[in-house]
Amino acid sequence: MPKAVCLLSGGLDSATCLALARRDGFQCYALSFDYGQRHRIELEAAARVAGALGAAEHRIVRIDLRLFGGSALTDDIAVPKGRDPAQPGLGIPITYVPARNTIFLAFAMAWAETLEACDVFIGVNAVDYSGYPDCRPAYIAAFQRMANLATRAGVEGRTRLRIRTPLLRLSKAEIVRLAASLGVDFRLTHSCYDPDPAGRPCGECDSCFLRRKGFEEAGIRDPLEYTASRG
Amino acid sequence: MPKAVCLLSGGLDSATCLALARRDGFQCYALSFDYGQRHRIELEAAARVAGALGAAEHRIVRIDLRLFGGSALTDDIAVPKGRDPAQPGLGIPITYVPARNTIFLAFAMAWAETLEACDVFIGVNAVDYSGYPDCRPAYIAAFQRMANLATRAGVEGRTRLRIRTPLLRLSKAEIVRLAASLGVDFRLTHSCYDPDPAGRPCGECDSCFLRRKGFEEAGIRDPLEYTASRG
Repeated sequence: MPKAVCLLSGGLDSATCLALARRDGFQCYALSFDYGQRHRIELEAAARVAGALGAAEHRIVRIDLRLFGGSALTDDIAVPKGRDPAQPGLGIPITYVPARNTIFLAFAMAWAETLEACDVFIGVNAVDYSGYPDCRPAYIAAFQRMANLATRAGVEGRTRLRIRTPLLRLSKAEIVRLAASLGVDFRLTHSCYDPDPAGRPCGECDSCFLRRKGFEEAGIRDPLEYTASRG
Repeated sequence: MPKAVCLLSGGLDSATCLALARRDGFQCYALSFDYGQRHRIELEAAARVAGALGAAEHRIVRIDLRLFGGSALTDDIAVPKGRDPAQPGLGIPITYVPARNTIFLAFAMAWAETLEACDVFIGVNAVDYSGYPDCRPAYIAAFQRMANLATRAGVEGRTRLRIRTPLLRLSKAEIVRLAASLGVDFRLTHSCYDPDPAGRPCGECDSCFLRRKGFEEAGIRDPLEYTASRG
């Protein structure tokens, strides 16, 4: 079985991505980050999902992105609520964390190199998403090109690293249906940027908005209990 | 004064790079990494150099690259000694740390974004060097291209991030002469991969080899005291 590193936040998209990698025959090394995010509870979801989906290993890297600041996910800045983040003209939201996906992918690339894995899975999406620059297809292609110049394997021509983004062009409803077909247990996942102290999702942040919209459009019931009812 | 993030290991090259950035009028934000390196003492050199060269700030990010392993700089693997690492045919040495420069540059990019800085300085060199893939010009160009797709500024067209590599095509002797002309205090720097418990450089690892050769060819005395005499 080929090995793959799978970035895993514990949310719906990364869980679906891991399930796809497993279905496609990869031995999966799940990688999560404790980066100072206010929704740190997602790491418990990541551990549950990695276990349920049969990851060969799950590692959590500690890095402190609060050191640089600049995001509502790591700083004491209010998380936007009650809007569709995918609507045109909103620009890049304050929940964008500078360089986050580049840092995550760089660590994934390091692990892939020592595992001699040729594949890194990341559940980025450029359809029902928040407009983060580091989720767009051109960014992913540029990262892959850079990665293949950065590493021992790329230089020696032994292997080539592929950044796999199977969810890139799916709507959130399509992701929900795909996840259901792959047997992802939605109860194990966590998507909310601003959960209450008990870990329940707010239902109103950009991430909850997209998730709820996706389940509604897919005609599938989201088993999570939100603190806010759908407006 | 424009701001710049300057990667600073505390070695000769990064100190020279910081001195150049200061001379060229940048307000410098020095960034170092405590990544599990066996020559962790270089961080003390980085702090001394940042202070002596007037960095506006110096931050040390803790990341644990021992988590993935695969290098003599982070694992219990012997550091090669007594050879010229720039000689042809040696391949990529065991001191190569997977994805290290990509991880360092990704953090630098994050800080640059929150500082609204357009410049990142890195003292990579592709002449008298150890053949690390992530020191080559093609890698740096690919990273810069990726970085400008990854960030808010690059997307909004406000600024463009430049990865500045002023030492890329200089020999080590040229770097030594440049450093001397910029007033870099060589006593403050640390280059050795395998210092003794008192922090004295071994004189025989790849990094010491290149440094000593550079000073000899430049006709300048290296003030460091090496534990091994020059063979």
